[in-house]
Amino acid sequence: MSNLRTPGPIPVPDDILENMSRQMINHRGPEFKDILYRTTEGVKRVFETKNDVFIMTSSGTGAMEAAVVNTLSPGDKVVNVSVGVFGARFGEIASVFGADVVHLDFPYGTIVDPDKLKDLLNDQPDIKAVLVTHNETSTGVTNDLQAITAVAKTEFGKLVLVDGISSVCSIPLSTDAWGCDVVATASQKGWMLPPGLAFISFSEDAWKAHAEAKMPRFYFDMSAYKHYFEIGQPPYTPAISVMFALDLALQKIEAEGMGSVFERHAGIGQMTRDGVKKLGLSLFPQHESFASNTVTAITVPEGVEASKLLGILRAEHDVVLSGGQQSLNGKIFRIGHLGHTTADEIQEVLDALAVALPKVGFSPSRVEA
Amino acid sequence: MSNLRTPGPIPVPDDILENMSRQMINHRGPEFKDILYRTTEGVKRVFETKNDVFIMTSSGTGAMEAAVVNTLSPGDKVVNVSVGVFGARFGEIASVFGADVVHLDFPYGTIVDPDKLKDLLNDQPDIKAVLVTHNETSTGVTNDLQAITAVAKTEFGKLVLVDGISSVCSIPLSTDAWGCDVVATASQKGWMLPPGLAFISFSEDAWKAHAEAKMPRFYFDMSAYKHYFEIGQPPYTPAISVMFALDLALQKIEAEGMGSVFERHAGIGQMTRDGVKKLGLSLFPQHESFASNTVTAITVPEGVEASKLLGILRAEHDVVLSGGQQSLNGKIFRIGHLGHTTADEIQEVLDALAVALPKVGFSPSRVEA
Repeated sequence: MSNLRTPGPIPVPDDILENMSRQMINHRGPEFKDILYRTTEGVKRVFETKNDVFIMTSSGTGAMEAAVVNTLSPGDKVVNVSVGVFGARFGEIASVFGADVVHLDFPYGTIVDPDKLKDLLNDQPDIKAVLVTHNETSTGVTNDLQAITAVAKTEFGKLVLVDGISSVCSIPLSTDAWGCDVVATASQKGWMLPPGLAFISFSEDAWKAHAEAKMPRFYFDMSAYKHYFEIGQPPYTPAISVMFALDLALQKIEAEGMGSVFERHAGIGQMTRDGVKKLGLSLFPQHESFASNTVTAITVPEGVEASKLLGILRAEHDVVLSGGQQSLNGKIFRIGHLGHTTADEIQEVLDALAVALPKVGFSPSRVEA
Repeated sequence: MSNLRTPGPIPVPDDILENMSRQMINHRGPEFKDILYRTTEGVKRVFETKNDVFIMTSSGTGAMEAAVVNTLSPGDKVVNVSVGVFGARFGEIASVFGADVVHLDFPYGTIVDPDKLKDLLNDQPDIKAVLVTHNETSTGVTNDLQAITAVAKTEFGKLVLVDGISSVCSIPLSTDAWGCDVVATASQKGWMLPPGLAFISFSEDAWKAHAEAKMPRFYFDMSAYKHYFEIGQPPYTPAISVMFALDLALQKIEAEGMGSVFERHAGIGQMTRDGVKKLGLSLFPQHESFASNTVTAITVPEGVEASKLLGILRAEHDVVLSGGQQSLNGKIFRIGHLGHTTADEIQEVLDALAVALPKVGFSPSRVEA
């Protein structure tokens, strides 16, 4: 079995995988109703929200679309605060559906400066919503979401839409306490699950926005989800097998406790960063304090061909890492360490890198000396 | 284990379920690329199309939305040909996204009259597309899709969007030969799979329409699917486990042969109809020739409470049937027999009905006498 270390999916614990092969049940029957209510409560606890949370069958991108189309109207002015590929995607979705998107971009490898957002919101009082990525998977950084929402929500009262795809259930995110109106995430991340489900929270302000939001929506219309939830059903046939897996994963998460989940991610993240630095590699984030505890982005050393390095790791060590996306292709590579990731698995990656790097013209020892 | 006889999901064969618990792989790696290309070719063969087919992570409703938003612009005049709840849904999706929808509705329990469609297309030459349901799950009828496309496509050259959710892989549908521009379907139907994936075909005319289609779309934008397919990837993280299951299901379907798959469904459909009539029950479709081979809709006998009947079947016989939807609630009940359904399973349903019906005030023998 490969040591799969992309930033999601990651290997799923055996008992959760076994739950994926349970036989089908009626998604409009009493047994599914129990599962739907129980898992929704569990997801709410992880989100730290008392508000609505819905479980959808889609990838995280579907949940990002749901965040946008359920709360905005064509012509609404929004600011998209971005530090990478997924931040740009959030703005693109809003733009495709007709929002007037003001781009507040920060260089790749850096994080959002809340003061810049403050200046922008002061300058442009007609902005209705702030779209922001909590953890930017493409560059391996975590934004200070609490500081951002303190500006966007507490100070300016804007609607705050959060891409929490690679943070929720791995990195602390207090949906209600921080004033996040919509948070979107997906099953193949910190939840230790296969992909197939996405989760989205909806605050009271989000529902108020929904009542006036005119972007067209059907499959992702949260009012259908809310309506059907009242009778214990999903509006459309869900990925039942992933629901079975979610049910067990939440039991395991509750048994462990969220404090431990966060500490575990922080520890594994630190171990990964310490390890790659010891190999003489450089983290891509401009400061280590920006670095994410779910994915480590590493600068490809001068003269090294990234695809060759990843190919050797896969072929000779059965270690699967991710390259850089779009303009970062060939410039960085990434180690995912979210969800169920052990220290042994990370050590394997580091050991494999120590052997593979010299083969692509980079000598780890040279730098250590 | 329940005898789950809703019109999807239905019980999945054990070996396919086992494939659901395979460990995760990188959806942007070479192994997934092989699976994506292999399954796409298999799905194409089932669709009987040489054109593009895409595999999406969503329910069938998501694929219906994809059919609409990828080929139409707000203001486009379309005719929605409907005989039930799912037909109405197709029109609603088009309407929500701004199409000017002309409704050609036929009474529940009947099928589409192609001559009426012909009259309408003659009267309103500005109609751009025809939206039609092949098999209407809510009323248990199968439209004569070939006759409908002969009018819509061959005679009038309209864009034809087909909801084939509960027909493809169960009831013959020749996508290319009949001139269906877009056909949408979902995994939990004839494919013997858990829900989570939807499949959609795209003809050359559909792509021509796509080039001009202005309805907003992101998650369901098929151009992203096409672009990524060229490098052997999905645009967004897919339900990998269901892809594993699809890979095996297609092998089983190919081994059986589509001719046998269709005959099997026809035989099971006939057995179900014969059995319920023998119990003295009436089929909901106005003529038996309208009746579907994937789901049998039965009129709830006078004086019988449908929910009570279904409750007894579930509690005392572990047989799970579906009630009627929306205005048909309490008026019909439905037996699903698509995908992997055996004669024994249908016999169990019939035997259970024979015992349960007298308990809700209907005597099967009374009618048989």
